[in-house]
Amino acid sequence: MASKPELVYFDGRGRGEIVRLVLAAAGIEFTETHLKAREEYLAIKDELPFGQLPLLKIDGQSFVQTQAIVRHVARKGKLLGDKEPEMTKIDVLYEGSRDFFMVFLYIGFTIEESKVADIKPSVDKYLTFFNRALRENGSTGYHVGSDITLADVGVLEPVLATIDYFGEEALKDYPEIQKYFKTVSSLKAISKYIKEIRKPKNDSKYVATIREVLQF
Amino acid sequence: MASKPELVYFDGRGRGEIVRLVLAAAGIEFTETHLKAREEYLAIKDELPFGQLPLLKIDGQSFVQTQAIVRHVARKGKLLGDKEPEMTKIDVLYEGSRDFFMVFLYIGFTIEESKVADIKPSVDKYLTFFNRALRENGSTGYHVGSDITLADVGVLEPVLATIDYFGEEALKDYPEIQKYFKTVSSLKAISKYIKEIRKPKNDSKYVATIREVLQF
Repeated sequence: MASKPELVYFDGRGRGEIVRLVLAAAGIEFTETHLKAREEYLAIKDELPFGQLPLLKIDGQSFVQTQAIVRHVARKGKLLGDKEPEMTKIDVLYEGSRDFFMVFLYIGFTIEESKVADIKPSVDKYLTFFNRALRENGSTGYHVGSDITLADVGVLEPVLATIDYFGEEALKDYPEIQKYFKTVSSLKAISKYIKEIRKPKNDSKYVATIREVLQF
Repeated sequence: MASKPELVYFDGRGRGEIVRLVLAAAGIEFTETHLKAREEYLAIKDELPFGQLPLLKIDGQSFVQTQAIVRHVARKGKLLGDKEPEMTKIDVLYEGSRDFFMVFLYIGFTIEESKVADIKPSVDKYLTFFNRALRENGSTGYHVGSDITLADVGVLEPVLATIDYFGEEALKDYPEIQKYFKTVSSLKAISKYIKEIRKPKNDSKYVATIREVLQF
């Protein structure tokens, strides 16, 4: 029997979280190896052609580049659609979800409350956009068609972060986002991700570990 | 007969260049509309859910998000591979080419010679990586297999920029890159792209136009 895929990253969200999420959505069980010291990073640096993490070991191969890893897993999980224009719509919305997520990555290394308030207008801009996309898809609770795709997976990450930073009331003006969130978080795979797999918000210990390992 | 696809962007490289390149590589003829004034941007802003360009009108649909557009066109041109692990290798190398390209995007708005010298170590790091990837693929002149894929298309953009900024001698320590460049630039579609479609390096007039239209 093939061994489970192994995700090599830190013990926190960062760029690894979308890989955990898409693995969960695809129904693929995996193990994690967490880097905690500079030497552990240097020991695997030759496996990292671009010096970047995460790294995913799957089917006897090691893959880097987060978005390439995500697509590989999404293909296995049949989350990319199988015909046009759905395939391209999924890609457009997934890419949009990465822009939305960047808003949170920007504040991920600060614990300052003032910076958190700064991003609220951007968060609302993206929520407005995805709320409309959901409505235009017929209010199915999904972004494309009536089943989960990589678009839903991608949008879930910043929506969960929105709730973390601003509470569920931040979604009150976005009924379609509420319906989508209720729909996908009721799916067994996503429910398991939220309860058992998702990493907590960055704390000062996590930030210190990253700075030590990557020395920046 | 369906009308030709229309690329809406500025009259320069920026984020539109990879779309021109992949359209050319896919053998798809297209027209361009260039934004030159703030009002022209405001007039189409409702078509731009994320406020971003380029926009590609194709097959009666309007698509945004550069990477989603690229994948759509690459799928039509059969540049994404058709089996594993080739499909994922293409994605990994294409994503790596975007990191390489970011090095040039960073200096795209400066005309200062000193900044150009600053990026040389990064350029060499990426050339070293892609040179090795080409060798590991069996020195076919292509990055994956023995035919053009999105990986080759992606790497071409920063390789051409390397030659623009540092001359062909910048490739002298990278024999595989030289072979690759000779191979792909000899293809009819790519030769046509380089001679007829590719935009010139940013000049001060172009930079002024972008600043006026997007007001940043």
